[in-house]
Amino acid sequence: MDSVAAVPSALVEKKSNAAGREKFMDVYQQLKKEILSDSELVTYTEESRAWVEEMLDYTVPGGKLNRGLSVVHSLELLKKDTPLSEQDTFNACALGWCIEWLQGYFLVMDDIMDNSVTRRGQPCWYRVPKVGLIAINDGIILRTHISRVLKRHFRQSPIYVELVDLFNDVEYQTASGQMLDLITTPAGEVDLSKYVLPTYLRIVKYKTAYYSFYLPVACALLLAGETSVAKFEAAKEVLVQMGTYFQVQDDYLDCYGAPEVIGKIGTDIEDTKCSWLIVQALKRANESQKQLLKEKYGKKDPACVVEVKRVYNELELQKVFEDYERDSYVKLIADIEKLDDQALQVVLKSFLAKIYKREK
Amino acid sequence: MDSVAAVPSALVEKKSNAAGREKFMDVYQQLKKEILSDSELVTYTEESRAWVEEMLDYTVPGGKLNRGLSVVHSLELLKKDTPLSEQDTFNACALGWCIEWLQGYFLVMDDIMDNSVTRRGQPCWYRVPKVGLIAINDGIILRTHISRVLKRHFRQSPIYVELVDLFNDVEYQTASGQMLDLITTPAGEVDLSKYVLPTYLRIVKYKTAYYSFYLPVACALLLAGETSVAKFEAAKEVLVQMGTYFQVQDDYLDCYGAPEVIGKIGTDIEDTKCSWLIVQALKRANESQKQLLKEKYGKKDPACVVEVKRVYNELELQKVFEDYERDSYVKLIADIEKLDDQALQVVLKSFLAKIYKREK
Repeated sequence: MDSVAAVPSALVEKKSNAAGREKFMDVYQQLKKEILSDSELVTYTEESRAWVEEMLDYTVPGGKLNRGLSVVHSLELLKKDTPLSEQDTFNACALGWCIEWLQGYFLVMDDIMDNSVTRRGQPCWYRVPKVGLIAINDGIILRTHISRVLKRHFRQSPIYVELVDLFNDVEYQTASGQMLDLITTPAGEVDLSKYVLPTYLRIVKYKTAYYSFYLPVACALLLAGETSVAKFEAAKEVLVQMGTYFQVQDDYLDCYGAPEVIGKIGTDIEDTKCSWLIVQALKRANESQKQLLKEKYGKKDPACVVEVKRVYNELELQKVFEDYERDSYVKLIADIEKLDDQALQVVLKSFLAKIYKREK
Repeated sequence: MDSVAAVPSALVEKKSNAAGREKFMDVYQQLKKEILSDSELVTYTEESRAWVEEMLDYTVPGGKLNRGLSVVHSLELLKKDTPLSEQDTFNACALGWCIEWLQGYFLVMDDIMDNSVTRRGQPCWYRVPKVGLIAINDGIILRTHISRVLKRHFRQSPIYVELVDLFNDVEYQTASGQMLDLITTPAGEVDLSKYVLPTYLRIVKYKTAYYSFYLPVACALLLAGETSVAKFEAAKEVLVQMGTYFQVQDDYLDCYGAPEVIGKIGTDIEDTKCSWLIVQALKRANESQKQLLKEKYGKKDPACVVEVKRVYNELELQKVFEDYERDSYVKLIADIEKLDDQALQVVLKSFLAKIYKREK
């Protein structure tokens, strides 16, 4: 204990995070190897094996891995009295990777639909010259890999059916959120009358919150042997709320974050995104401000962006956001503390602590 | 019995087919209604509900429905001594529709990747002006509906896990076959050296045979309560072979079928398809014929198509096909008769009878 106590606690956490990340990456290599040598259902050719390997390395592990790692972290917190066994750690990593695979699948597909250029600091997969629209089938392949991993590592487990249902349910919710987004705010069309709060909240809830926040905790709960439907529902309620708050932050940082901190220059205004900021602005704007937003939102011209931001400032959206952030935090903490499961409270508070007042 | 006996048997079959098809369509309407009112996981908006309904009607039920209907027909044959209960019929129809949904999903995606123009006599879904690349997400939605139908109607059934695994496995095989096809014969590139029989057979097996032939019978076997792994494997062996034969016929008819019978004008030669005919031609061609095929295959110019067909005729590919068709039939019948399950023999022979010497 002494030697640990001598090290600043932030550094200890960093070290243990680094070790956790390394272990997590080891499991990626193992899962990839299993998939590439999987001959139960498909015999790969050399050419197709190489293709899949390149595609996986390009599309799956290059993100921040927060979603995947949080399965491991949540399970550790749920089993607070006992350190995780090798098998527990592996299972949590494998499910964490299933979430990262799901994310990779959605991003590959979304980038094609959004005509995006870069992703995670490199050209989008479909922009790689030899790939093009083959990326659509690669996305499908990514989805099928989740089923393969679940079957290989959990088929004999009592939670197999729950896991399969969970991933199917969350895929359905995410795709439905994506559909709401695509048909509400179609590329090229600017109809700001549709940018209202209930629509915004519905899109965010389905498109982001379930897979980013509920899914990792639900995986950890299943691994911890939790069977109470009420507990899953209670966790879901809080996590979907937290996921919404997270997306609002994302939208805020796109405009007000420091580019050198968030690692990109926001373009939500140029891209006519149904962002929390434009929704709030339209709600608060007077007639002349509304007219200006209609004329300037969604234009590539930097002068238009400046004018939109000026309206945002006139409407004091930074303060509106700060109020929202504080209120969300207070409400989330209150909701979490209503739960009777102490370990689950710790998990949810840990999630909240990671994102509260984040700057990137 | 008398009144039935008085009707020519072909007509009776037609009548019963028509009744079966009507019942099958009723189940489509029910499944669609359930999906559109499904509020367990997603609350649709009016706009998104209308979108999903239009998308389903456009992409799912417009085909020949052979794959879906064959689940019902196979189950009838497997339960030869007992007429199907209402519940059995509904279950078989529901699984048949899951196969049709899977087919719809693959076709929506494939048409985008192939830049296709029409499908089932209307513009491809992604070609509908308001749709465009939103079709990619619609494809994903179609896939998620299969999980929804399985969960709603089979979650409490002892075959639920088997069904989920089966659809996942077959999706994996089909997507892998599609990948083999896409990377072996990429659009725009003409490298005929890759068009060899083992490659052709591998693509067809994975891309077509599993989902079109094995999947319907596997569904029927599960509904009939079959649990012997050996029986599923034996059926798979024969059905994958039959699916290969079916695809060879398809390739043959694309060139030699009567357009007014097959309902389209074949364009495999213009489209540089890795067709059974070009594979056979390249295998048999002398140097000058090979040279000509290399120059003329994959060109839109009708004169080039005529020259390719002339080489096909010089090589007597029609006779090669007739020999292949006869040999396949003989081998399939022999393999079927080796099986010790009489009811399964009847199912497999019925499948074979439907496709042997088909002209469309």
